[in-house]
Amino acid sequence: MCPGEPAPAGPVTPPEASVLLRYRATIEYDGTAYYGFQRQVPEQPTIQSMLEAALLQISGRHCPVTGSGRTDSGVHATGQVISFELAWPHGVDALQRAMNAHLPPDIAVQACRPAPAGFHPRFSARWRMYEYLIFNHPQRSPLRRHRSWHVRRALDLERMKAAAALLPGVRDFATFGTPPQGNNTVRELFRADWQQQGEYLKFTVQANAFLYRMVRSLVSSLKAVGDGSWTVTDFQQALSACDRRRAAGTAPAHGLYLIKVDYNGF
Amino acid sequence: MCPGEPAPAGPVTPPEASVLLRYRATIEYDGTAYYGFQRQVPEQPTIQSMLEAALLQISGRHCPVTGSGRTDSGVHATGQVISFELAWPHGVDALQRAMNAHLPPDIAVQACRPAPAGFHPRFSARWRMYEYLIFNHPQRSPLRRHRSWHVRRALDLERMKAAAALLPGVRDFATFGTPPQGNNTVRELFRADWQQQGEYLKFTVQANAFLYRMVRSLVSSLKAVGDGSWTVTDFQQALSACDRRRAAGTAPAHGLYLIKVDYNGF
Repeated sequence: MCPGEPAPAGPVTPPEASVLLRYRATIEYDGTAYYGFQRQVPEQPTIQSMLEAALLQISGRHCPVTGSGRTDSGVHATGQVISFELAWPHGVDALQRAMNAHLPPDIAVQACRPAPAGFHPRFSARWRMYEYLIFNHPQRSPLRRHRSWHVRRALDLERMKAAAALLPGVRDFATFGTPPQGNNTVRELFRADWQQQGEYLKFTVQANAFLYRMVRSLVSSLKAVGDGSWTVTDFQQALSACDRRRAAGTAPAHGLYLIKVDYNGF
Repeated sequence: MCPGEPAPAGPVTPPEASVLLRYRATIEYDGTAYYGFQRQVPEQPTIQSMLEAALLQISGRHCPVTGSGRTDSGVHATGQVISFELAWPHGVDALQRAMNAHLPPDIAVQACRPAPAGFHPRFSARWRMYEYLIFNHPQRSPLRRHRSWHVRRALDLERMKAAAALLPGVRDFATFGTPPQGNNTVRELFRADWQQQGEYLKFTVQANAFLYRMVRSLVSSLKAVGDGSWTVTDFQQALSACDRRRAAGTAPAHGLYLIKVDYNGF
């Protein structure tokens, strides 16, 4: 405003700034420093709390963020999907830039657009895909330590593939996880396979939904097949037992990545 | 000792513990948390100070560590070579395990053996090889942020290859760095090329020795060719000028890796 110019009468509101719109965004994060995705007590930083802090800074209002699912402490993502409501008078590209400018270096918005009517990041999801990386080498590797599980004992990839091939289908996965709510442990698993990827053994798994800790529990039991402590038959019997106590432990969080969430018709 | 058993007479020294031997080791590190390789003031952690602290813990004595060359703050290595003298009564495998047990997770000994007579990690080196990773993408990537230089503008790989092809030979590289001591800026460069490696542009460079900041200075000027701010001729003229002020800046440390040091006849 020029000096001497009369002040405008009352507060000025940009024309569309009060219209709440729902947005959908794809998020990448390095989970190393966070207590998982879901907001906890204020002292514990989570991915959700960082996203909400960024939205508060750019809009001046608290905007609750909903995710496609929780990821545990230390788990990474390249394809987490979120939604939130925001009064934003500019375009989605500017919104993405503003969010990235207010997010820390270990979290970024990779895509952002208006959410279709009725879209919900969790309930609208058709399937989720996770990857898990094992670094199978006699020596530990400083440069790979936050991105993969270091397993010293040589693993037999063909045996791990054979055991993973038993998983696809509609099954009760009670051995490999607990349900987030209720007691339904049946899930439809579309894909589960191992590949050699450079220096890593990569497990890819795709299902309509996952139980709590399911991927890390599967990986730990498949690794038991790989290092010879289990036979493929042991794995099959553990799966059929539908008994959480039959799983061979839980693989560390830092080898796990939420890669993609697919939405039917959205 | 059992209660009542007489104490041994005087300190017990293992038979060979006082024989100093020289060892050679290959080191991997994530340079993110360190003030470079070289020991500085005590408050600033360096790779060298961590290695010496580990040797002090396992031997009870200060054992100075010599490296093949300094790496700057934030630079990584998979093939740094060091040597040190130690009185160690067990085998080299046990020494490697003991060192790794006393080193932090971001530093590891990948190989260890007795050093041949006359071996010096810097003066005996025939050549060094470095790699530099550029992540060339419109969006920043949290999972790649400590391992590569994020360049948003699309780079022309073919132009960068053409400029890099001008580098091999015995040349005065004064434009691209300062000598660690004296004023000799002539080096013999054996290889300099760019490759697409997955999502990265990877620069590989091999020379008998490097000037201070030389790889990062080369990468920054080659990136100027790639993004169109320099022509290949501009690069050639800057090289020929032998004038430090003609370089197009210095690329960030966190994309740089010391990969290999080769020793002729050792």
